[in-house]
Amino acid sequence: MKIALAQQNYIVGDFEGNLGKILKGIDEAAAKGADIVVFPELAVCGYPPRDFLDYKDFTRRSLQSVDTIRKYAAGKVAVLVGSPSFNNDSDGKDLYNSAFFLHNGKIIHLANKALLPTYDIFDEYRYFEPAKNFSVAEFGGKRIAVTICEDIWDIDDVNPMYTFNPMERLMEQEPDIMINLSASPFSYRHADERIAVVKANAIIYNLPVFYCNAVGAQTDIIFDGGSLVASPSGYIVDELPYFEPALRVYDCSEVCHPENSSVRDNIAPKESLPLIHDALILGIRDYFQKSGFSKAILGLSGGIDSALTLVLAVRALGAENVLSVLMPSQYSSDHSIDDSLALVKNLGSPYHIIPIHDVYQAFETALQPYFNGLPHNVAEENLQSRIRGNYLMALSNKHGYILLNTSNKSEAAVGYGTLYGDMCGAIGIIGDVYKTQVFQLCEYINKDREIIPRNIITKPPSAELRPNQKDSDSLPDYDILDKVLYEYIEHCYGPEEIIAQGFDEALVRRVLRLVNRAEFKRYQTPPLLRISHKAFGMGRRLPIVARYLE
Amino acid sequence: MKIALAQQNYIVGDFEGNLGKILKGIDEAAAKGADIVVFPELAVCGYPPRDFLDYKDFTRRSLQSVDTIRKYAAGKVAVLVGSPSFNNDSDGKDLYNSAFFLHNGKIIHLANKALLPTYDIFDEYRYFEPAKNFSVAEFGGKRIAVTICEDIWDIDDVNPMYTFNPMERLMEQEPDIMINLSASPFSYRHADERIAVVKANAIIYNLPVFYCNAVGAQTDIIFDGGSLVASPSGYIVDELPYFEPALRVYDCSEVCHPENSSVRDNIAPKESLPLIHDALILGIRDYFQKSGFSKAILGLSGGIDSALTLVLAVRALGAENVLSVLMPSQYSSDHSIDDSLALVKNLGSPYHIIPIHDVYQAFETALQPYFNGLPHNVAEENLQSRIRGNYLMALSNKHGYILLNTSNKSEAAVGYGTLYGDMCGAIGIIGDVYKTQVFQLCEYINKDREIIPRNIITKPPSAELRPNQKDSDSLPDYDILDKVLYEYIEHCYGPEEIIAQGFDEALVRRVLRLVNRAEFKRYQTPPLLRISHKAFGMGRRLPIVARYLE
Repeated sequence: MKIALAQQNYIVGDFEGNLGKILKGIDEAAAKGADIVVFPELAVCGYPPRDFLDYKDFTRRSLQSVDTIRKYAAGKVAVLVGSPSFNNDSDGKDLYNSAFFLHNGKIIHLANKALLPTYDIFDEYRYFEPAKNFSVAEFGGKRIAVTICEDIWDIDDVNPMYTFNPMERLMEQEPDIMINLSASPFSYRHADERIAVVKANAIIYNLPVFYCNAVGAQTDIIFDGGSLVASPSGYIVDELPYFEPALRVYDCSEVCHPENSSVRDNIAPKESLPLIHDALILGIRDYFQKSGFSKAILGLSGGIDSALTLVLAVRALGAENVLSVLMPSQYSSDHSIDDSLALVKNLGSPYHIIPIHDVYQAFETALQPYFNGLPHNVAEENLQSRIRGNYLMALSNKHGYILLNTSNKSEAAVGYGTLYGDMCGAIGIIGDVYKTQVFQLCEYINKDREIIPRNIITKPPSAELRPNQKDSDSLPDYDILDKVLYEYIEHCYGPEEIIAQGFDEALVRRVLRLVNRAEFKRYQTPPLLRISHKAFGMGRRLPIVARYLE
Repeated sequence: MKIALAQQNYIVGDFEGNLGKILKGIDEAAAKGADIVVFPELAVCGYPPRDFLDYKDFTRRSLQSVDTIRKYAAGKVAVLVGSPSFNNDSDGKDLYNSAFFLHNGKIIHLANKALLPTYDIFDEYRYFEPAKNFSVAEFGGKRIAVTICEDIWDIDDVNPMYTFNPMERLMEQEPDIMINLSASPFSYRHADERIAVVKANAIIYNLPVFYCNAVGAQTDIIFDGGSLVASPSGYIVDELPYFEPALRVYDCSEVCHPENSSVRDNIAPKESLPLIHDALILGIRDYFQKSGFSKAILGLSGGIDSALTLVLAVRALGAENVLSVLMPSQYSSDHSIDDSLALVKNLGSPYHIIPIHDVYQAFETALQPYFNGLPHNVAEENLQSRIRGNYLMALSNKHGYILLNTSNKSEAAVGYGTLYGDMCGAIGIIGDVYKTQVFQLCEYINKDREIIPRNIITKPPSAELRPNQKDSDSLPDYDILDKVLYEYIEHCYGPEEIIAQGFDEALVRRVLRLVNRAEFKRYQTPPLLRISHKAFGMGRRLPIVARYLE
């Protein structure tokens, strides 16, 4: 039996476009001699559809796509494709997250997802009733255990979050093959975890595993592909490409060939920097392509964050499509302009220089009667940042550029940024990248030749909103700050647990207070491309009015 | 047996403050001769704690509060109080949503919530394992069925969303009394639904029901109180006040007195306008009090939205604490200023007038070389709105005012607003109020005397960003628009279902496209006080990059 994995890139709610890709995949798989072609979880509507699933109309359209696929594939190839479907029982949630097994114009099997991820960015129990009945599909003389994404993840040492395991139920019917339809998003450690889970399933159940993942970015969430085929001994027979679509066909008997039972650890752990780099580029590219835009704009300050954002955008969209705007003030250092100019020259990308002085003066004059002679403070600092935001948005509105947000995760965490100023933008490019990772990514980009001028990397970070301002005036060193943030945000440790690791108590309490108090700012930031397992945004939901650790 | 309901107002994560209120409630209930005092769901930590529940530290602190309460109440009164607790099984989610029954220094019963709302603003299955075992509590010779909020809502004709009913399980043990600990948020139809649910439970199970709700606003979510006591025949013996804390004691035998078995429908349906009015005022007041602020600022345009926002803010915070800023441009009509001045005079609240002309000119001059002589368009319109946003934020930052957002729900729906301009603000006051409801609320406010000048209510709505601009140039009449929006947003009907109701097809398709395309704007808006059962924000989660109905 030949099984094709079709790792495709969909747009949520683009029924026509997604259907077109699936039909093409059917033709390609059939041409390559496949008996079954497997598409990802919720392929017909794209993942995650979120509250579009509250619209019956949305599920009806999904099912219409399934129906078209059923007819189109008849006589060509059997199909396993993901779609929402209606729960026709009177009780429970309205929908199932389903995999339709289509063959010769018929639905020969329907598998519903049992383990519904409802944590971090996932809300599946919001929409779906968990499957309660389990049966294997019969096809071509084989018994196939069809599971959907999370269904294979409740392995004891990985994620014992659920109270039962659907694969154990399916094993009662002695399947010959496991097929999993997934939409499993990227984080920089997730590929290794995924390989471990697929291996573990193969070994525990002694079955060949065919795992088909989605690829492509959906707003902030990046699907990295990397679909997998494992032999019953846990040997990874193939790993599909990362960050791009692919379709490959596997002969089941070759996958199960005894020579695949010898080596079990044939995939080395992945390095995170190249993954993050490639993920962010895909994130930018898909945001633009899927929204129908081609041109980006950003404020280039001379600092490392906007420099990194520019390089990533140029790699995603092409140098000619990324406009940098340099907006010096009286507090800008000379090197800010020089370094920025050196960078755009290296990249060959366009730029404007628009000083903010005259507008700032006009604001000061207008506000002077109402500032009551109070000293220069955050009001004047934020005003500069907001004037820059206005320039960028005016150019965006006039010419159809999309504004990239350049804030990093460390800043977003402690609220070191100006709402409606440098926090503007349609999409945050490095908002899930800690400052220390920003430095590492710049070194990675410069590994063969100096693309980002060295001075941008080595000079002390500064917002340049008052004379001789440095980030280190207000914040701990990023080396320490990022470690404390990681313990609090990624590990969810409380203050005592972090202090017990040896960090200074006053520093820890101050940082945690800063993080919690900045929730009102993060609530209004753009979506941030997610590269960690705990990004700000949909995956981290906190009240604004609260007193915990404040 | 005497049962006290303590309808209290907490702050999320304010363990010390919440504990103080609970201990006071214990003293008051004991002084009034109660045998049991009932506090709301998750009282010790406040509801909704959201992802603070991912912090073990947070649950540990909650349990410390329970421990203090246990000791404090010993010998005074028995206590039923809500707190998260740890799930000590190796499988399933880490926590339970629990009710602790404390008596004489002991935990005499622990009830866990079984039905975990995971829809709209609710995310409970994100955190909690549902209860699987059920038993009644024994106290003072009575068998008490203790349930938590949603546990009593799965009544066939109300909400058949779950596959089993915890009250049916508890009935096997023949309880004498039902007690429910709730944190059930306001929407303008919810009070009637809640009364119906409590009545239905009393009648179906033939038990007296003691229902204790929380009160107070938590950022955007408003808890309205209105706790209830019902006789076994479904007679509503008492309804606690709405929008304010209260503690009352009931004698169980009086509740069950035969005279309470005659009249079943003694509570008239509530009128929505007074509820919305009072809810918004509580929402503003609690946002400020709980955040430690007292002074608000807003842009007063001369239009009806900012006028309504100002009146509500003055009623919540006091006239002297709400600063209006009038920011005329060359496109502002004379009546904009006159009407605004008449309003602030009626209210006795302070104001500034700061024209935007000079700053606008400075921007135009700076941007002119980059606008390439292109015609006046949305870039110039948005720029005016953003200059106003900058003024307001500068005054906010200088003086510690909190900026109120004045956008209504109709605008938010179709994207008729400027990001970083009129969409600025810490909290949206009328962002869940459709434009047609804005008019109704203004008439309600003016019912005894003209507080909002009539001209503000009667003039055609306009953003005044270009000469003679009217909302009706770009949008359908609000009467029709709001109806279509309601069908799409509140009812989740698709285009065909709305068109089938008799609305013009082109208009429906255009409106739905506008709504879906404006998702990127709504993503960056402040939290909006929720008064409907489907508000923008946490309760409505949609992807930004998508093509459904576009």
